[in-house]
Amino acid sequence: MNLMSFFNRRTSAPVARERLQILLAHERGIVGGKSDLLAQLREEILAVVGKHLSIERDNVQVKMNRGADLSTLEIEVELPGPEVVRV
Amino acid sequence: MNLMSFFNRRTSAPVARERLQILLAHERGIVGGKSDLLAQLREEILAVVGKHLSIERDNVQVKMNRGADLSTLEIEVELPGPEVVRV
Repeated sequence: MNLMSFFNRRTSAPVARERLQILLAHERGIVGGKSDLLAQLREEILAVVGKHLSIERDNVQVKMNRGADLSTLEIEVELPGPEVVRV
Repeated sequence: MNLMSFFNRRTSAPVARERLQILLAHERGIVGGKSDLLAQLREEILAVVGKHLSIERDNVQVKMNRGADLSTLEIEVELPGPEVVRV
């Protein structure tokens, strides 16, 4: 299954809130590349996103997963929609 | 299926070359957020990655997909392994 279709399938219905998901996967190959590449990229990518979206502790989730060959980093920023006023 | 498992399943065998894949998905929600957020992030994220990996025209692929609710950006950087010398 194509990675794009994964995103499309998951979000066919329009969601109430604005959301940005970022996923990084680093395969080091048999030669072995930088083992801490994703840790370095994490702070810099959060800084880039922070210039465009308001990032606070309670609206961002960061998950890192370090494997021998494959490391992954998942960043999810969810922006609150307008408050729904009940009358 | 969890997004992480998608990556793990795709790359169970160690690959010869080092590879970095980045996927961004922006859901604008019913309120509608910035429509060109991914276009803005693309250049800045490529600049961040370029500080850590050598990015040239022939080893990076960028695919953008703009939808009404969901826009996605896929960046793939593949680094050549050492040349295999046949004797």
